Amino acid sequence: MAEISLHRPYPASAVEAWDFKTDVAVIGFGAAGACAAIEASAAGAKVMLFERGSGSGGASGLSGGEIYIGGNGGTEAQREAGFSDSTEDFARYLKMAGGPCADEAKCDLYAKQALKHFDWLKAQGIPYRGNYLPGKQIEPMDDSTLIWSGSEAAAPFCNEAKPAPRGHVIQHMGWGGGRPLMDILDKRARDLGVELVTDARALALVQDGDRIVGVVLNIDNKPHFVKAEKGVVLATGGFVMNEEMRRKYCPETFKVNDPIGDQDDGTGINLGVSAGGDAIHMDQFFTTCPWTIPEPQANGVFVNVAGQRFINEDCYHGRVSRTMVDQPGGRVYLLLDSAHFAEPLELARTDIVGTGDSWEEVEAELEMSKGTLSATMAFYNKHAKNGVDPLFDKREPILTPLDQGPFVALELNFETSYFSFFTLGGLKTSIDGEVLDRTGSPVGGLYAAGRCTSGLPAWGHGYSSGMSLADCTFFGRQAGRKAAG
Amino acid sequence: MAEISLHRPYPASAVEAWDFKTDVAVIGFGAAGACAAIEASAAGAKVMLFERGSGSGGASGLSGGEIYIGGNGGTEAQREAGFSDSTEDFARYLKMAGGPCADEAKCDLYAKQALKHFDWLKAQGIPYRGNYLPGKQIEPMDDSTLIWSGSEAAAPFCNEAKPAPRGHVIQHMGWGGGRPLMDILDKRARDLGVELVTDARALALVQDGDRIVGVVLNIDNKPHFVKAEKGVVLATGGFVMNEEMRRKYCPETFKVNDPIGDQDDGTGINLGVSAGGDAIHMDQFFTTCPWTIPEPQANGVFVNVAGQRFINEDCYHGRVSRTMVDQPGGRVYLLLDSAHFAEPLELARTDIVGTGDSWEEVEAELEMSKGTLSATMAFYNKHAKNGVDPLFDKREPILTPLDQGPFVALELNFETSYFSFFTLGGLKTSIDGEVLDRTGSPVGGLYAAGRCTSGLPAWGHGYSSGMSLADCTFFGRQAGRKAAG
Repeated sequence: MAEISLHRPYPASAVEAWDFKTDVAVIGFGAAGACAAIEASAAGAKVMLFERGSGSGGASGLSGGEIYIGGNGGTEAQREAGFSDSTEDFARYLKMAGGPCADEAKCDLYAKQALKHFDWLKAQGIPYRGNYLPGKQIEPMDDSTLIWSGSEAAAPFCNEAKPAPRGHVIQHMGWGGGRPLMDILDKRARDLGVELVTDARALALVQDGDRIVGVVLNIDNKPHFVKAEKGVVLATGGFVMNEEMRRKYCPETFKVNDPIGDQDDGTGINLGVSAGGDAIHMDQFFTTCPWTIPEPQANGVFVNVAGQRFINEDCYHGRVSRTMVDQPGGRVYLLLDSAHFAEPLELARTDIVGTGDSWEEVEAELEMSKGTLSATMAFYNKHAKNGVDPLFDKREPILTPLDQGPFVALELNFETSYFSFFTLGGLKTSIDGEVLDRTGSPVGGLYAAGRCTSGLPAWGHGYSSGMSLADCTFFGRQAGRKAAG
Repeated sequence: MAEISLHRPYPASAVEAWDFKTDVAVIGFGAAGACAAIEASAAGAKVMLFERGSGSGGASGLSGGEIYIGGNGGTEAQREAGFSDSTEDFARYLKMAGGPCADEAKCDLYAKQALKHFDWLKAQGIPYRGNYLPGKQIEPMDDSTLIWSGSEAAAPFCNEAKPAPRGHVIQHMGWGGGRPLMDILDKRARDLGVELVTDARALALVQDGDRIVGVVLNIDNKPHFVKAEKGVVLATGGFVMNEEMRRKYCPETFKVNDPIGDQDDGTGINLGVSAGGDAIHMDQFFTTCPWTIPEPQANGVFVNVAGQRFINEDCYHGRVSRTMVDQPGGRVYLLLDSAHFAEPLELARTDIVGTGDSWEEVEAELEMSKGTLSATMAFYNKHAKNGVDPLFDKREPILTPLDQGPFVALELNFETSYFSFFTLGGLKTSIDGEVLDRTGSPVGGLYAAGRCTSGLPAWGHGYSSGMSLADCTFFGRQAGRKAAG
């Protein structure tokens, strides 16, 4: 028997017997794998879905169940709430959100197709109440289904792309819509005849000449060989749970401490690379500390340890948080006055470290030099009263003077506060989910989707909620259809 | 004939005839390749060196010929100048300079061995006058051979590692010591019997089972097959000249416009990955704008478009420049008073964009809000008079009030000013120069050194002059010896 390795395809010639035969083998039962399986199955292929855990979910199941959708004039919910949303504005926002890492072809395709994709999601059975919940939400606390979920309305984004709320959340009471969303996709896949094998961990791809023709999985502690006549779809998630990979490819993540993931250990990325795939933008990660809750806190001002502001705080909480982590000194401060302070979310682990009847007193309590934080706040308040932010172009209604003492500073400490994070880098894929090699050619028989790829959510400083599930569900479908075709 | 590709090893079984046979084949005749060839040859191996250009040099030949050396109490030049330099302080600085990307084993080994390495360099014939030239130098304008070449004396580095100047420059009148350094290594390699083939571009590695046994090169427009009994050493430099690779792995470099390189198109990285090698920290790059010349300008203060300082300006010009490029707005300003202004280096392309008899006037000319830049300078000057910098811990003698009008602001524009840059990410190698696969095991018969690897200069924010040539020469030697052994 040849060596079985994540890092080297197993030669088909060495396979003594196939334990399973299928058209399409999907690896991983999060949203990307589920959608790939559903589409491949709907296209008439025999599909087997292998999941390492004991059931569906993955990181998608831990999410808010929010999908980033817009364009083509807007969804019914967007239009009813008074937002038209052109495909051009939507595509522009997606590209700005991808920053230097944007895959323009994926942005353009998704912007064109998102409304049809939304119809498809509804056709799978995902419910949407269709109502718009204004304000700064991380996820709706009730069962509303349209929220602002990015930096759309904030500068610089709003200057380039007309803003609209695009976070379409499954109708579900409270946080945690990812699990019910996965339940629906799970049931749909089973109803279509997708054969599910759980507790099956991918060990290696199987290669015949240049083509991937199967996969080896650990099931009941023994290697099992799966022949996949049409293709293998990798949908195993990112590598946030793999410290060794993070050290080599994404070491900035060691500044923060709360990985979000299931078994996201980079398996799919390693398998893809073993077959000649190209892993790109591996240094990119999402991080966020839930500082906008309770909502009045969203009016706060952030300063770094030098007492300087560093961003338009009206941007998406994750963009603001990612920029926090760029600041020197290991921590930043959220400044609030008595009109805007409320007990912070316990989850956030953001303690009060300074108080005072003036910003000068807060500054002194934080042992910052006289004329740093206090000067920043004097400048901010003076201009906020006039409705302008000359430094970062923060705008009303979030731009409010913080001048009603007593005042407070919360510490967001990268090591001790809750900064959740996950990785964004992964396999380079075509718009059809084909794994591309380093020359840009598809690796025959190999497809991938979700966070084992670099997709719509490509850049940590531009991430917006719902982009990852948009990418998983839409490009998961693309991969499934292409593999079956 | 099988396909010849950078991205897939050529099977030895498909080689019809070997055009050359050698023990060790070195690819690339910069400093890393030269030192690998010299050591392999000195160890008794037959060595062939293949260079894509028409002679030696590579990016090393374009450099200042500066090598970062210290530890073990210091070199004679360091000690004569009054600097002792412990191995521990040297190693600590190397690790801080590597930041989150540091390869601690390489830092520790090099810190222990650097003095012996210096002896070896001198034994090859590289001349050192042995004198210390104080002050802020990019390269000596005269033939001095010891300068400060990093952030050693600046906070936060000086708080953790006792500072010493460690930039050992070949004795050579004026800038550009890299070329004479390469001439010496070139001659030394030839004298030892290294067989040089120029105008020979690597096309593919040759693999027999798991082992690399040779290389295919384009010579006279035909593929030539080279058998390398003991090993192939990749020393082809980074990928700064490959826009497609930069787009995928290091897109932040598109902010700046002046690549430094020769034919650094990522060939060695691609070849290494094709054999199962692991490319790490691919997002890292060095950049610098020569703003410390003429020397009085080093006393300047930098502000971003929000009028905020962002670093201890006493740090290495490359660290300061790399941090500039992190600032929003596409440009930063260097602020100087009449006591410290001198006509900037034409090379730098840094124009005067604001002047005034007060900082308020400069601020107004730059169309910055009242109380931004001027407040920053008032705060800075007030504390500088007392010898402190509460924000970034800049220290005397570089900490001088800038209060003697008229005042001036130079613009360092990322797109139009001279920001030279090169890439730092590359193959993961052992301390012996073995190319490591994704599990950390050596790829048999394959070695690498220099900028096609991730080595001592691993982190753009920590780079110091001389680190890359230290890495090329020392780990080039390691690779050559190991390949020959």
